[in-house]
Amino acid sequence: MHLNDLVNHGSEWLKGTGPHSDIVLSSRIRLARNLDKIAFPHWANKKQNKDVLDAVEEAVSKIDLLKKTTVFRLADLDNVDKQFLIERHLMSYEHAQKSDSKAVVIDEEEIVSIMINEEDHMRTQVMQSGFNLFEAWNIISAIDDFLAKELPFAFLPDWGYLTACPTNTGTGMRGSVMLHLPALVMVNQVNQVLAAISKLQFTTRGLYGEGTQASGNLFQVSNQVSLGHSETDIIENINGLIRQIIEQENQARETLVSRNRAMLEDKINRSFGILKSAYIISSQETIELLSMLRLGCDLGIIKDLDRRQVNELFIVIQPAHLQKIENNKLTAQERDIKRAEIIRKKLVKQ
Amino acid sequence: MHLNDLVNHGSEWLKGTGPHSDIVLSSRIRLARNLDKIAFPHWANKKQNKDVLDAVEEAVSKIDLLKKTTVFRLADLDNVDKQFLIERHLMSYEHAQKSDSKAVVIDEEEIVSIMINEEDHMRTQVMQSGFNLFEAWNIISAIDDFLAKELPFAFLPDWGYLTACPTNTGTGMRGSVMLHLPALVMVNQVNQVLAAISKLQFTTRGLYGEGTQASGNLFQVSNQVSLGHSETDIIENINGLIRQIIEQENQARETLVSRNRAMLEDKINRSFGILKSAYIISSQETIELLSMLRLGCDLGIIKDLDRRQVNELFIVIQPAHLQKIENNKLTAQERDIKRAEIIRKKLVKQ
Repeated sequence: MHLNDLVNHGSEWLKGTGPHSDIVLSSRIRLARNLDKIAFPHWANKKQNKDVLDAVEEAVSKIDLLKKTTVFRLADLDNVDKQFLIERHLMSYEHAQKSDSKAVVIDEEEIVSIMINEEDHMRTQVMQSGFNLFEAWNIISAIDDFLAKELPFAFLPDWGYLTACPTNTGTGMRGSVMLHLPALVMVNQVNQVLAAISKLQFTTRGLYGEGTQASGNLFQVSNQVSLGHSETDIIENINGLIRQIIEQENQARETLVSRNRAMLEDKINRSFGILKSAYIISSQETIELLSMLRLGCDLGIIKDLDRRQVNELFIVIQPAHLQKIENNKLTAQERDIKRAEIIRKKLVKQ
Repeated sequence: MHLNDLVNHGSEWLKGTGPHSDIVLSSRIRLARNLDKIAFPHWANKKQNKDVLDAVEEAVSKIDLLKKTTVFRLADLDNVDKQFLIERHLMSYEHAQKSDSKAVVIDEEEIVSIMINEEDHMRTQVMQSGFNLFEAWNIISAIDDFLAKELPFAFLPDWGYLTACPTNTGTGMRGSVMLHLPALVMVNQVNQVLAAISKLQFTTRGLYGEGTQASGNLFQVSNQVSLGHSETDIIENINGLIRQIIEQENQARETLVSRNRAMLEDKINRSFGILKSAYIISSQETIELLSMLRLGCDLGIIKDLDRRQVNELFIVIQPAHLQKIENNKLTAQERDIKRAEIIRKKLVKQ
């Protein structure tokens, strides 16, 4: 698989199906693993990093659970390529900062990605569409079991898996759910919900990863604690919280539909109208309008539009994607024009 | 003709044709006339007002220059009816304030309206589409010649026609041209142009009459002086000024098209998109968006849309029109919903 093959490819996690996919965009599990007796990547020397890269690459190549995996060595990628992978949620911003002895392994359906020599020797993630953490866990667990036979993971019976940052020690697991909460935002209850989440030792961030502001009413909720509980307990814990938020969002949607239907129809249809007609549009404005479009699909206010298309637009309108599609470097101004063109083409067909 | 017949009727002056109709919406001439030896309306007693009403009505009924004139006595009209006539530019706001012995006479094509017992005994106006003051003058002059034979107009050789307000004395004539100047507004030159106009003893006001703010980039330019010059000299004078403004607006349009085409396409197409998709919209927002739509038609950026339709929408989206169309009283909120519905119906067909 060539990196450019992904440009016109729809990721599994964006397909807009799965449980509660009206409110939950996607579910993600990641595991942090390190090889025994080798310094963590930031402390390792060049040779050690290279050895880890080779060992993990070899082990990964043996997994037959995954359809057609490809290893992308970061040294072979330019900045747009790297940004493109970050935008697709296939690797982290931190991973892209240096290229030496770093790689990311991706399967054809973009369900799995394995970062080699990020903060830990290995960061494996599995993404699923909708509210589906256990399905993601089943997949990642099978991969992890396989790799555990191939690679000597750093593990202490009392501590669990050892990791570069102590907050990941134990299970090395983080479960994240990407929620779309436009109604809670509109009825001004979202801050209350987010405050409650942080008290329960969960964190929230935006669609575009750690440190990013929530935009487009998208909130990613993750566990903070990975130590002292089993993986399934942690997932159950996240699931319980997410079920409550889904319930609150559903109630807020019902309130809006029954009390403010005209306002909703106006806001949603205007968003659709602007997206179909703009010739210059920023990513920030696009994301806010797409959020309304997605809500419109969920509420049946917008018909004949597939939720998958809306999900994919959230990803496709980002800078590196635009440049990959255009196969050229673009200035910010050129991107705003290209973005509008792509959105019109995708939506006006409807 | 019944007043309600006008609801689905397109006024002659809105048809979007005539010289320079890309920049000039319409041209209007009005003449102030009073009957000799009868006090002006505000000073006259009830009987005098009634006598004037009867005499003018009778004289007007004899004009065969006009197709099917109808006399609407204000005492027979409710507030929505009166507001409806004001919105169609067929009578003034001041005329609607009291109903006693007042009337307005309208021909079927809405070219001519004659207010009886406004500030003067008679205020006759003729409206034409585009930049067409002389055509309006020809029509109103023929009407005036006819009426002068039927009615004893107050006239002094040294002063000309006598009027309630001295600013109208002399010719009793005011010529007005409704200009659409979106490009001059966008390049921030319109205030300069308006300042020059006022130095030249012309006044400007908005689409919706005296005292109204300019909105939708529409500016009505009129002569201030009606004394000391012949009617044709005054018209020539206005025409010269308007030709300069047209030239400046055309230059500003060319500048925008050559330097900011993407911005223009974006602004114009977004306006069209919002108008086609909104479910709640204020008249103020509508007018600003319609202005962009009209510019889009003029520049060929929006195709398959008739300028007449855009012109008519400026009128149809006003409160009394909406209530006439709905045949019901509507609150401001209901009007915003109805307005959006009417606009969608008119534009989505395209």
